[in-house]
Amino acid sequence: MFISYFDDKRVTENAINGNIKKLAAYRAEIAASATAGTTTVPEYSLYHCKEFALHEELAALKKQFKGVTHVVLVGIGGSSLGLEAIHSVLDTGAVKLSVLDTVSAARIDAVIKSVVAEKKVSRIAVCVISKSGGTTETIANAAVLLDALKEVYGAAIYGQTIFIGNPGTELLKYGKKQGAHIFTMPEVIGGRYSVATMVGLVPLTLLGHDVDEFIEGYLDAGEERFESLVAESAARIAVYHKLKYHHYNFFAFEPRLEQVGKWYRQLFAESLGKEVDLAGKTLIHAMVPTVSTPVELHSTGQLYMSGVPDTVTDFVTFDDEIIDVKIARGNKMAAALNGYTMQEVATALYGGVVGAYQEKQLPYRATIFEESLPYSLGLFMAMRLREVMYVAKILNVDAFNQPNVELYKTKTKEILSL
Amino acid sequence: MFISYFDDKRVTENAINGNIKKLAAYRAEIAASATAGTTTVPEYSLYHCKEFALHEELAALKKQFKGVTHVVLVGIGGSSLGLEAIHSVLDTGAVKLSVLDTVSAARIDAVIKSVVAEKKVSRIAVCVISKSGGTTETIANAAVLLDALKEVYGAAIYGQTIFIGNPGTELLKYGKKQGAHIFTMPEVIGGRYSVATMVGLVPLTLLGHDVDEFIEGYLDAGEERFESLVAESAARIAVYHKLKYHHYNFFAFEPRLEQVGKWYRQLFAESLGKEVDLAGKTLIHAMVPTVSTPVELHSTGQLYMSGVPDTVTDFVTFDDEIIDVKIARGNKMAAALNGYTMQEVATALYGGVVGAYQEKQLPYRATIFEESLPYSLGLFMAMRLREVMYVAKILNVDAFNQPNVELYKTKTKEILSL
Repeated sequence: MFISYFDDKRVTENAINGNIKKLAAYRAEIAASATAGTTTVPEYSLYHCKEFALHEELAALKKQFKGVTHVVLVGIGGSSLGLEAIHSVLDTGAVKLSVLDTVSAARIDAVIKSVVAEKKVSRIAVCVISKSGGTTETIANAAVLLDALKEVYGAAIYGQTIFIGNPGTELLKYGKKQGAHIFTMPEVIGGRYSVATMVGLVPLTLLGHDVDEFIEGYLDAGEERFESLVAESAARIAVYHKLKYHHYNFFAFEPRLEQVGKWYRQLFAESLGKEVDLAGKTLIHAMVPTVSTPVELHSTGQLYMSGVPDTVTDFVTFDDEIIDVKIARGNKMAAALNGYTMQEVATALYGGVVGAYQEKQLPYRATIFEESLPYSLGLFMAMRLREVMYVAKILNVDAFNQPNVELYKTKTKEILSL
Repeated sequence: MFISYFDDKRVTENAINGNIKKLAAYRAEIAASATAGTTTVPEYSLYHCKEFALHEELAALKKQFKGVTHVVLVGIGGSSLGLEAIHSVLDTGAVKLSVLDTVSAARIDAVIKSVVAEKKVSRIAVCVISKSGGTTETIANAAVLLDALKEVYGAAIYGQTIFIGNPGTELLKYGKKQGAHIFTMPEVIGGRYSVATMVGLVPLTLLGHDVDEFIEGYLDAGEERFESLVAESAARIAVYHKLKYHHYNFFAFEPRLEQVGKWYRQLFAESLGKEVDLAGKTLIHAMVPTVSTPVELHSTGQLYMSGVPDTVTDFVTFDDEIIDVKIARGNKMAAALNGYTMQEVATALYGGVVGAYQEKQLPYRATIFEESLPYSLGLFMAMRLREVMYVAKILNVDAFNQPNVELYKTKTKEILSL
């Protein structure tokens, strides 16, 4: 993992170091919890996947669901974004993933049709994920999906279904009654921090990805060389926040990283976007995260490169050396590009953009994945989870709550007379 | 098309009316150009599709490419986003669309494989779109794609290929030499305004969509009842801009509208995100557009509903009455939702969110498509194109140029020694 920074003049070494100092006690606290294996703090998400029992459960799962060719995930937000992020990078087409997140009649109709086309129930795995067991979207989607599949495949569909959530929810009890598989996640770990619990690891296993490599990378984020980088990045983001930068642009320079950006956007927005800090003080500023891809060089690029005030860019990319194609010598349409490979052109675009940012003095950080992709994704996600906790600590906000989404949920329930 | 507004207290009737007044001369000017059929102004994009010859060409195209089941579009930014937006709403699965926009070896490898799987050359249509004929990404993608397909299908692939761009570009000349079809778009119409030129209409025809309905809606946007709504919306956006609102959130409440959001984000960012205005004055403020979907209610929703300062939300949705599914009475998992349809749950979520915005005094506009989808999309896109021209007029910026993207292009070419 290669990480570099380019700051504008307003960000001083002093300010960064000052923030790093503010983190000292918290860093020691997390390190102690990790060593002790403390299961009662929300930071447990950073080392929960050390648990041996979890690995055994996943190995058993892998064996049992060997013939699966289509995984349907029913979940939303913290229950789906992490898994989608990893799958969209690692997807080789071997196992199909369908996700039912928000409520859309057209979408569920299409998913049911494609699952029915699998013909054999042993090819299907359905994961129903709701931490609380009470997410309206997930319950509506799961009810309609499972009813439709039961009509085709009979009760056998429950043998291919897995319910995941906090221990003891009504949803899990219901699943157990139907004979479905039940996996629990630790209650203390919030949804947006749950990618390396059963929430992410069960569907990743069903999809055939290298979960061991992912976990190895994930746990390596706790090592000193990575942890100190995280502290530096967090200190920097907190400086930008204090200087009232308004926009945080996650620039997925490899299009397959766009979903990783959406996962990070959730993590960042939900953890840091609060009305009041821990001292009860009203916050009048927030950085709003957005996600870009190289397509935006031909669209929002104009805006970002105009130096729109107070935007920080977060370039993330990887070298794709497994697949490459050369532009043939002698091709007259692309005569000037003859002999280059697609990867070389992509790298030149990346270099061109980074060069333009430097010349225009626009602040950014750049991350390039260099090791195996499952390992890099694990490392990257764990570093970002830790980072957002660190930023919250410096800003004195609660990284783990989300008080403002309750209002729309209440109003929705009023409309439905629930 | 149902449109409503909810402003916060800082936006006054006076300010809105003041901006509407500023538009009077420009509105009259566009109306006069439209009546005269003036082809020399960039606003030509608003009425170009009245041209009779264009409809004849499309009818001939439809006939000739009747057997097509897979369309590959090679283009980026203004050459692909509009088409993708329309297709992602109207897609019924009848014809497959693959888009090659940015440079990605993995993506082009996957597209080539799926096009080769079609087996018959008559099932394939390739559209290569570059206004200038010199877009690096498009040329690289087209060169590699067409070389690979020629190896499988022989020179016959050029009979299934269409080149679109400004008249007389090198790319068009090259295409003509190979025996491909050539369509031109008017040079005066910028890429981000080109959805209702051959750039959008040719691939839409190949995909089997109702282009006539789309054009009908598109041209209706010029009628007084819609045009005056556009002026009001533009006046409002300019007020928000003057009050230094930082974020513009396009909230695609139907997930299939997300691509429409991406098209609008480009239009908005490229047209309004400038460093200097027409008087040469440096601009220190810009509104940055971002795109949300209902999935974000479980992620960035927390941030937006915290009342993050200075965000305007642009809800866009439609009633999907063609496909719907009921949650069965007697389903125990979703007992509280028994008897509701998915569309009713989706509508309740929408109502819940809009209610929460009102209670929290967060400004928004809401658009609901009520007529046929192709018609609504045409109307919506033309209204938004016109609106952004109006906003630019009030802000005194050039809606039609994009000076800042040249730097990264220059640097990319340096790296590739072009």
